[in-house]
Amino acid sequence: MSASPPIITLITDFGLHDEFVGVVKGVMLEINRNTRIVDISHHIAPQDVRMASHLLARSYSHFPPDTVHLVVVDPGVGSSRHILAVSDGNHFFVGPDNGVLTPVLQKETNLNIHRVTNSELFLSNVSNTFHGRDIMAPVAALLASGFAIDKVGPRIDPNSCTLANSPQCRIVDDFLMGEISHVDRFGNLCTNIKNKNVDTFSHNTATVIKVGNVSIDTFATTYSNQKASALLVLYDSNGFLEIALNRGNAADFLKLAPGDPVHLKRR
Amino acid sequence: MSASPPIITLITDFGLHDEFVGVVKGVMLEINRNTRIVDISHHIAPQDVRMASHLLARSYSHFPPDTVHLVVVDPGVGSSRHILAVSDGNHFFVGPDNGVLTPVLQKETNLNIHRVTNSELFLSNVSNTFHGRDIMAPVAALLASGFAIDKVGPRIDPNSCTLANSPQCRIVDDFLMGEISHVDRFGNLCTNIKNKNVDTFSHNTATVIKVGNVSIDTFATTYSNQKASALLVLYDSNGFLEIALNRGNAADFLKLAPGDPVHLKRR
Amino acid sequence: MSASPPIITLITDFGLHDEFVGVVKGVMLEINRNTRIVDISHHIAPQDVRMASHLLARSYSHFPPDTVHLVVVDPGVGSSRHILAVSDGNHFFVGPDNGVLTPVLQKETNLNIHRVTNSELFLSNVSNTFHGRDIMAPVAALLASGFAIDKVGPRIDPNSCTLANSPQCRIVDDFLMGEISHVDRFGNLCTNIKNKNVDTFSHNTATVIKVGNVSIDTFATTYSNQKASALLVLYDSNGFLEIALNRGNAADFLKLAPGDPVHLKRR
Repeated sequence: MSASPPIITLITDFGLHDEFVGVVKGVMLEINRNTRIVDISHHIAPQDVRMASHLLARSYSHFPPDTVHLVVVDPGVGSSRHILAVSDGNHFFVGPDNGVLTPVLQKETNLNIHRVTNSELFLSNVSNTFHGRDIMAPVAALLASGFAIDKVGPRIDPNSCTLANSPQCRIVDDFLMGEISHVDRFGNLCTNIKNKNVDTFSHNTATVIKVGNVSIDTFATTYSNQKASALLVLYDSNGFLEIALNRGNAADFLKLAPGDPVHLKRR
Repeated sequence: MSASPPIITLITDFGLHDEFVGVVKGVMLEINRNTRIVDISHHIAPQDVRMASHLLARSYSHFPPDTVHLVVVDPGVGSSRHILAVSDGNHFFVGPDNGVLTPVLQKETNLNIHRVTNSELFLSNVSNTFHGRDIMAPVAALLASGFAIDKVGPRIDPNSCTLANSPQCRIVDDFLMGEISHVDRFGNLCTNIKNKNVDTFSHNTATVIKVGNVSIDTFATTYSNQKASALLVLYDSNGFLEIALNRGNAADFLKLAPGDPVHLKRR
Repeated sequence: MSASPPIITLITDFGLHDEFVGVVKGVMLEINRNTRIVDISHHIAPQDVRMASHLLARSYSHFPPDTVHLVVVDPGVGSSRHILAVSDGNHFFVGPDNGVLTPVLQKETNLNIHRVTNSELFLSNVSNTFHGRDIMAPVAALLASGFAIDKVGPRIDPNSCTLANSPQCRIVDDFLMGEISHVDRFGNLCTNIKNKNVDTFSHNTATVIKVGNVSIDTFATTYSNQKASALLVLYDSNGFLEIALNRGNAADFLKLAPGDPVHLKRR
């Protein structure tokens, strides 16, 4: 058991109206009262595996070593889908094998992936509808407290795991073709186009961004680079291309949503 | 004072927009900075005593020994209603005497119930509108830190406490008559019919469930027992009968809400 | 570094759907895993500096000594606006210099205000769009753990700081003229009129409150002073005049919103 307080983060589609999130935390605190539990989001749309993996990608690296990231978006609960426990050498990850852990499973080094099968670690009565409480919460709490990942179940190969279908941006002729990956609270349009994708594409030649029925030909560095209510393109705090409206809501203004295309064109 | 960190859970109708929840936590941390405070739900509909007691019933047993469960749904704040502190020998419970603690007060053994009257424990200026902050938060924090419940005020009899009016399912002729107790985030219809009620009623004879304008004649064990978009009946993770739509929203599909009837009939 | 666990409160306009709040907490726990982080509200309307300062005023004094209050409502992120770290001799406060810290900056004694300029304290890569994560979170975490405020940057004069434009109530002829400052979860209409303002105005003579198209001529002491569905006026738990509807929603009933006038008239 580690001396410093264990840390666990939670990404779920449980919402905050019911008792689900609190009960998961109760199970974790039963194992170790010193555990710090941090909510990332419980507002994943029900069963939206892709959004859960997207938020995991944007959050996990900001936590201290040995943090356990638990992702419970689990439409297949009670079926034959497996549950995974993963270490990347720095953090741990627990979730159903349905794609929610995609950002970690795509890493190329240091992955240690186990199927969670050791029922001695589970609650004594495992329900068919709430494995987040009965299996994943205790396993996450144990890993956070220093329990060896080798003991949760057999090690498996990354290639046997399920990945979420998350579209990658690609270059087609004179276009870098991406899409809106999510809309944040401020109405900013986050895309799947990373700064390095743009560098590879543009080779320092000028580009224009086409999104909805508008074209934008300058990159900003901050929201306040433009006057209020002006559209702007910049890189978000994770290095992805983002379309924003200074002191406004770009998604409402452009009437765009996740999945809508965002293209860059060489001028 | 106990050496391990105290744990307090919160069920309130405060919502998360205002400062109410944060301020209650501040008062608790002022008494003991080591306290872990876990939100169960702050989205109880304003003054919905029955829903608060329902979430308490579904959550408290999942927490470690000596956890204090504070329930603040308090439309009678500032009136002559009393405030209770209860021990069931394992956990503590604090809340107004208006029915929010019903699931505990109905237990038949080991109850130790006190009226909270010792004003030395309260904040120095008690308002007429926020006893959650001024009285219940400090009392809960003290109990969590090992303060003796005998000192919060006089011990009283369970029969003098207020219970919430929560309908029980009952057998009438060939029917087991229950109702929808709440709709969860996924649109699952939770009922007040427990597995043991069904066993008593059916004696292993086949039954059919009637809810809204549909009849369902098979029990499932998991959501994925049925194909997507199929209605199913199963026992939820607390042992209550639940009507669900695999990968869909049963409440929207059936247009049903809490209080609507759910009947079982012998075939 | 202080021995007792550090406490940090958060007021932001981040909402709870995205990963923003969780990531800020991860950065803080990276600095000190023992930190207790308490959410006050993340539902400030995007870029609503005045509402953020209002919730800060209503919450901070309920926390233990040395608590750090971090307020991140930051429409000018990445621009030339400054970031402040403030001590009032009891608590610390961190936020952009745009008015969110107004309730503290208006205090007249013991203020110690610094511009946050010491980039050695920041994350190694500071983005242009998320200073809450990259600058304010680590500085708040360090202050909470005992880091000297003198080392975050140069001390500045209170007069050089930005204040929020928050209207004060005032006496005009026979009227005490105030306004609705916010509507809480229960539909209670909170005003900017404090008990001492009323005392100064009325000198114990009878007054009538005019709000919307109604007049109310009696003060209540509790919500339950009136029968259900009756309008009432009382002082809220912070000493401000509040208009409420017993077991109902005054804002819906009166169709009023923040900014609408509330007048007291001598009878």
